Amino acid sequence: MTPINLAEKLDQFSNHWDPKVIADYNDNDVMVVKFKGEFPFHKHHRTDDFFLVLEGEMIMDIEGAPSKTVKAGELFIVPKGVVHRPRSKQEVKVLLIEPKGEPNTGDADRQAAAKPRL
Amino acid sequence: MTPINLAEKLDQFSNHWDPKVIADYNDNDVMVVKFKGEFPFHKHHRTDDFFLVLEGEMIMDIEGAPSKTVKAGELFIVPKGVVHRPRSKQEVKVLLIEPKGEPNTGDADRQAAAKPRL
Repeated sequence: MTPINLAEKLDQFSNHWDPKVIADYNDNDVMVVKFKGEFPFHKHHRTDDFFLVLEGEMIMDIEGAPSKTVKAGELFIVPKGVVHRPRSKQEVKVLLIEPKGEPNTGDADRQAAAKPRL
Repeated sequence: MTPINLAEKLDQFSNHWDPKVIADYNDNDVMVVKFKGEFPFHKHHRTDDFFLVLEGEMIMDIEGAPSKTVKAGELFIVPKGVVHRPRSKQEVKVLLIEPKGEPNTGDADRQAAAKPRL
């Protein structure tokens, strides 16, 4: 039971699209990640996808709906089953929450679910 | 599917210890709250308790362990079953996540679980 400083955790790595587990909340991984560029479109059929932008801004592309800009201090939750793609021109720092065992890439890649821990 | 600005939500109320639901993540309420003063000691026997300090700082008192100071940009998760009490001298703004139906006050007050929504 120690306070977890998000900025300190983010300073420990520089790679993109590689979430790091920093805490556990019930059966969920709480993670920090850096995004830059474009992730593949994907969906999670059994979970919502939780994004809280900590620094910078990202675009969330959503199949069948207008894209959304999500800025620092803004939360965006993609409901389960919705095809989506985060992207950003500049690096963006994000807090993610997903059930343990859920791949970043959603249903297409279920064997690649384990995330590194900081 | 709209970005949710945490500061804008926090500007919509001024009372303390009264979490407001701003989003849903699976079966959890995502909430913002303002704390000032001292909450009762309590525990949640079936859920961890998620706190992310957005502005200000709080003290988390923990039964049988040293108290912790949790500052803006820091996450603190109280494991299920651990007796705890958040408090703060100055107002602090916090993002909370709890399973729907979970009372703030933990197991002692299960009938008072519904939270207002912003």
